[in-house]
Amino acid sequence: MPYKTIKTAEENGTGFIYFDREDRLNTITVEMINEISSALSDMESTCRSIVIGGKKNFSAGADVLQFPELNPSEAYEFHRKLNELALYFREYTWPVISFLNGYVFGGGLELSLSTDIRVCSRDAQLSQPEIGLGINAGAGGNVILPHVVGRNRALYMILTGARLNAQTAYEFGLVDILAGNALEEATRIGQVINTKPENTVKLAKRAVNNTSSSHIKTNLDYEAALFGILFSGQDTKDRINNFIKKKEK
Amino acid sequence: MPYKTIKTAEENGTGFIYFDREDRLNTITVEMINEISSALSDMESTCRSIVIGGKKNFSAGADVLQFPELNPSEAYEFHRKLNELALYFREYTWPVISFLNGYVFGGGLELSLSTDIRVCSRDAQLSQPEIGLGINAGAGGNVILPHVVGRNRALYMILTGARLNAQTAYEFGLVDILAGNALEEATRIGQVINTKPENTVKLAKRAVNNTSSSHIKTNLDYEAALFGILFSGQDTKDRINNFIKKKEK
Amino acid sequence: MPYKTIKTAEENGTGFIYFDREDRLNTITVEMINEISSALSDMESTCRSIVIGGKKNFSAGADVLQFPELNPSEAYEFHRKLNELALYFREYTWPVISFLNGYVFGGGLELSLSTDIRVCSRDAQLSQPEIGLGINAGAGGNVILPHVVGRNRALYMILTGARLNAQTAYEFGLVDILAGNALEEATRIGQVINTKPENTVKLAKRAVNNTSSSHIKTNLDYEAALFGILFSGQDTKDRINNFIKKKEK
Amino acid sequence: MPYKTIKTAEENGTGFIYFDREDRLNTITVEMINEISSALSDMESTCRSIVIGGKKNFSAGADVLQFPELNPSEAYEFHRKLNELALYFREYTWPVISFLNGYVFGGGLELSLSTDIRVCSRDAQLSQPEIGLGINAGAGGNVILPHVVGRNRALYMILTGARLNAQTAYEFGLVDILAGNALEEATRIGQVINTKPENTVKLAKRAVNNTSSSHIKTNLDYEAALFGILFSGQDTKDRINNFIKKKEK
Amino acid sequence: MPYKTIKTAEENGTGFIYFDREDRLNTITVEMINEISSALSDMESTCRSIVIGGKKNFSAGADVLQFPELNPSEAYEFHRKLNELALYFREYTWPVISFLNGYVFGGGLELSLSTDIRVCSRDAQLSQPEIGLGINAGAGGNVILPHVVGRNRALYMILTGARLNAQTAYEFGLVDILAGNALEEATRIGQVINTKPENTVKLAKRAVNNTSSSHIKTNLDYEAALFGILFSGQDTKDRINNFIKKKEK
Amino acid sequence: MPYKTIKTAEENGTGFIYFDREDRLNTITVEMINEISSALSDMESTCRSIVIGGKKNFSAGADVLQFPELNPSEAYEFHRKLNELALYFREYTWPVISFLNGYVFGGGLELSLSTDIRVCSRDAQLSQPEIGLGINAGAGGNVILPHVVGRNRALYMILTGARLNAQTAYEFGLVDILAGNALEEATRIGQVINTKPENTVKLAKRAVNNTSSSHIKTNLDYEAALFGILFSGQDTKDRINNFIKKKEK
Repeated sequence: MPYKTIKTAEENGTGFIYFDREDRLNTITVEMINEISSALSDMESTCRSIVIGGKKNFSAGADVLQFPELNPSEAYEFHRKLNELALYFREYTWPVISFLNGYVFGGGLELSLSTDIRVCSRDAQLSQPEIGLGINAGAGGNVILPHVVGRNRALYMILTGARLNAQTAYEFGLVDILAGNALEEATRIGQVINTKPENTVKLAKRAVNNTSSSHIKTNLDYEAALFGILFSGQDTKDRINNFIKKKEK
Repeated sequence: MPYKTIKTAEENGTGFIYFDREDRLNTITVEMINEISSALSDMESTCRSIVIGGKKNFSAGADVLQFPELNPSEAYEFHRKLNELALYFREYTWPVISFLNGYVFGGGLELSLSTDIRVCSRDAQLSQPEIGLGINAGAGGNVILPHVVGRNRALYMILTGARLNAQTAYEFGLVDILAGNALEEATRIGQVINTKPENTVKLAKRAVNNTSSSHIKTNLDYEAALFGILFSGQDTKDRINNFIKKKEK
Repeated sequence: MPYKTIKTAEENGTGFIYFDREDRLNTITVEMINEISSALSDMESTCRSIVIGGKKNFSAGADVLQFPELNPSEAYEFHRKLNELALYFREYTWPVISFLNGYVFGGGLELSLSTDIRVCSRDAQLSQPEIGLGINAGAGGNVILPHVVGRNRALYMILTGARLNAQTAYEFGLVDILAGNALEEATRIGQVINTKPENTVKLAKRAVNNTSSSHIKTNLDYEAALFGILFSGQDTKDRINNFIKKKEK
Repeated sequence: MPYKTIKTAEENGTGFIYFDREDRLNTITVEMINEISSALSDMESTCRSIVIGGKKNFSAGADVLQFPELNPSEAYEFHRKLNELALYFREYTWPVISFLNGYVFGGGLELSLSTDIRVCSRDAQLSQPEIGLGINAGAGGNVILPHVVGRNRALYMILTGARLNAQTAYEFGLVDILAGNALEEATRIGQVINTKPENTVKLAKRAVNNTSSSHIKTNLDYEAALFGILFSGQDTKDRINNFIKKKEK
Repeated sequence: MPYKTIKTAEENGTGFIYFDREDRLNTITVEMINEISSALSDMESTCRSIVIGGKKNFSAGADVLQFPELNPSEAYEFHRKLNELALYFREYTWPVISFLNGYVFGGGLELSLSTDIRVCSRDAQLSQPEIGLGINAGAGGNVILPHVVGRNRALYMILTGARLNAQTAYEFGLVDILAGNALEEATRIGQVINTKPENTVKLAKRAVNNTSSSHIKTNLDYEAALFGILFSGQDTKDRINNFIKKKEK
Repeated sequence: MPYKTIKTAEENGTGFIYFDREDRLNTITVEMINEISSALSDMESTCRSIVIGGKKNFSAGADVLQFPELNPSEAYEFHRKLNELALYFREYTWPVISFLNGYVFGGGLELSLSTDIRVCSRDAQLSQPEIGLGINAGAGGNVILPHVVGRNRALYMILTGARLNAQTAYEFGLVDILAGNALEEATRIGQVINTKPENTVKLAKRAVNNTSSSHIKTNLDYEAALFGILFSGQDTKDRINNFIKKKEK
């Protein structure tokens, strides 16, 4: 199946999904979300673990070019698309391991929170810069992040948009493991998991997610609705347009 | 408005609240709680972020001189006053950033847990010493602290009253950021937040607090009720009186 | 009371429970669970704190020799025994401090999660290797661990069975304090707690556990039921038998 | 204090708040919400119970004349105003008893859910008709109602806008007590409560509300955000305008 | 699409799913679950409400003929199939209205709990008889039922297998509405809902389900795991086989 | 084993516990709580269901003669004793069926909430009159009752102390079944349950209680702490003493 925004491969029981919009810093589009979902679905019967990421950058976040025309209902629906992918990672039968290179920003970082294991390159940079555009984070940036780094550090990241280096991200618990070569380490972890009995892998992941995520679905939708609300503000619209104009120069 | 226990200032959209009972190590009194609340309320319409703390010490905890005469109902009500301030920080429209210098003990540390972002000076000392007086912690020292540092490290701090240095506090996640000059760094963070669109700041803080605090109000009141119960014990009364006598010498 | 699998002592108000199956790496049996419970119960009226662990190794996990004959109902009941001990630690009147030496694996590590304070020797090794046997973890390895180290790091440990050194365990928040001599440090902590007023120690522990564990009992039983389910799989049975055969050579 | 939309009285320790827009069927405006809050606040120190309602009708819901001009942010803020009153009823020191006459529709019914005790006249009619206008219910019509009548009966009411008579409302648990004269019975209940010791009344109400409402605040805000989202839909706008035109003829 | 176990129709925007195994009292098989799911999926784009049930009987429960050969893992998976249909009803875009005729037993009754609105014929009989076979209920019979009728009445039904008539079921809140002709009344309700604006119907259902079901998914899986556990008991096996033999005579 | 405050019997697998302080209207003492616990423990291995109640009256509540001397800590501990019995009913292996005759007041009613099935005589009277004495209810009267009858009806009962007849209690869901002879009906239900396979009875009860009670233990302790707090008020003390004096005349 030929994809436009990702490349895929399967090796020794591990499915690889490489984001392939490096010219746009792997910013996330609806098409890309659909292709990732579709690739995951295809790999479910033949793979036992998934490795996902971008070779140069993980992702600089949602592609802002999609935003200027959205009314609040459409913004809410867009956010729900992102949430669905996050929930799909969590409910997917097999472990999803992300490798984090380069920019891991906004929607990119937020999606990584819902992968099962996060391997971070030592020179990655991580940030939730959405506030600068007048929007709130998606895919759990407000409602999952506090469970990952604590309420206070989450607020620090969310309200300032501060850029963290890999070491600080590790200290905050924002990533699980630091590695010189994140793709190699993620692949190694996938291979280890592939040697484990598949029914146990499945049930162990299920037990963890079922018991640590009870309110997450509701909270994600609440977050999405607030995201929609923010799209009725002129300040948000102006900031989005300014951001796009600056980039285009 | 002239305050007795705090000093206030406003600069570039940030409100500053300085504790001003350094001769008593900024120990917290009901008057001081009322004045902090009142200052926050006054600043709500003119400021966009709050920076709060003490120039030499954050606070050595609740002022024990208030305790000897309390019966359990009064102790419960005193604790609820402290809880109200903690909840006010959480529900306050704008981000509240604490800077932690010197002693950050007991009720002082506990209040800092409910500020949004905590910047800690490298030479601060942090502790929950209440157990030595026969009382339990207030403002979430039993029910919020475990969400911040984990159940086990919380029990270690609560049951031993151990004094942590800034580095350990950072490793525990008890503070968010270490800084040489905590006040300057807190001010800088406030300035960054002031550049962000105000409606988004407001909703982002709301989304985080609404979803990470669902049981906190109930738990705070449970904690307050146990605090009251402890005031009917002779051992607690004796320890409080001994503590006061020792200090007075 | 003469025990077969543990040794006990009482000193200055602290009860000591030493695991005493070092020839079997202190692997846990039903008899050992019963003896620990019984020792705790005996010490309740005379002690004010408990220190528990193994002098060379904490424990290499549940003794696998008990597993080959279990049907799913029996496996579920075995797991519930382990859960009961974990819940007993949490509900025990006095603080339970574990000292972690050598191997801290599987059921051993999981029990330590439910002690109140965990002191870790700098040369300890920590791991949840159950997945290699086709079983899921017990005593909270799926449902408490995510609250201790976060969902993602929990999945990393659970799905790969990776062995962590003490420093990484400390960074993950898997242990509370590192010490050169874990038993000495645990003893010192116990002594500090013994100087605190007993009613306050009791209520402070109760407040923390009541408010941070609301769903844990249900989640533990869910985990136990899944454990039972896994015992009907041939793969799990084979892995257990292979593991035992390899050990016996 | 002269109010425009309500009348107030105090008798034997009970405060009475009568809705006074009978010409508009006591439909709720922002002014009326503010006046009710203000009256409650004034009565707090002199009264021990509150009786609230309308002599002919409780309320036909929010006044739709306020809706045509609202954008999603403004709709969200309007809904939050209603939520604040509902939360104020719950957190108010003294019991709030509603007497339900005539039309008890939409926002009127929803506010009554958050009063403490609901006395219903035998000829009252109760309904959540919002769906017909393309909006969702406010003040808990989606998130509190299911706790009151069960998820299924809530959905029946919400999705069909069905009008219930008093007997069915009683069978559903939507009201607590049926009475020939609801105001008299509410007054009698208030008088009984006034004979009880005030501190106990206060703490008993607090214990019930703290423990049965843990997620309600978050859920109310989620509901409000969805309400805002719906205001960006043309269908909703058209239905509101048609409804107003029909009424004006 | 020709189905074997159900019949379907669409009329005025309502999709109808009629169970069509009346010779087997509409007992539920995996094939039937699959066909219902498939029919729902087909109707999603063309219908706005669903009416579901059996013309003579709703369903006498899961078809016991599937049980004798199941090991615990298979029993767990079977139960999960039923749970998935229950969750699908809840998450389905449009309202699902069940009409309850004749026997509404076991898995049949339990599935009806997860439909949105339940219309009950006055001569229906309702029961959870599973306990007589040594199995526990599926699709929420242990974990959703208590939310519907209260913990105590749930235990009464679950532990005795008592058969309730329609009037008692209504008084318990086990059904929402009594009707002479349940299919007609369910159809009428569907028609009313079809006149409402579709986006609002969708969001109102979402708000109710998101906020009233937070733990249901986890609880359903726990229930399923216990169901599996019970299949390792000889008593359960014997009771299932005896039941089948009796029926076959 | 000869008991002073209860009589016991075993018949056809059912254990019977009859309250035997009819001269004191079966008011509950610490001795009685201990004897009930002890009887339950004795019956666990020989019985499969329990029937519990009083032949003339269920119980008029806690025996007030125990109250005048209690300080807040002691009051808190007394309340915790009652809570422990309520939790023991819930966690007891076998179903506990209460039969409710005559007075079912205060602590008596509250204990019945935690039995599994409640059979009510048509001439019973039910009430939570504690408020009249200045105390709050025990054993869940504030924190379990709202789950049984809804928040509003709970507040009505708690704040007014209103006496309900059996029919209203049934309509509120406060009792499960009405019977002419409650003891006979309870016995019949016990006999039906005894015919069911014991492992299934055990797991079904466990599944229901585990999933519907997650916060109850914490909430019970919060309730107990508030109970203690109220004992430091003079008004409460006076009301208790007056009540006792009136009775003694």
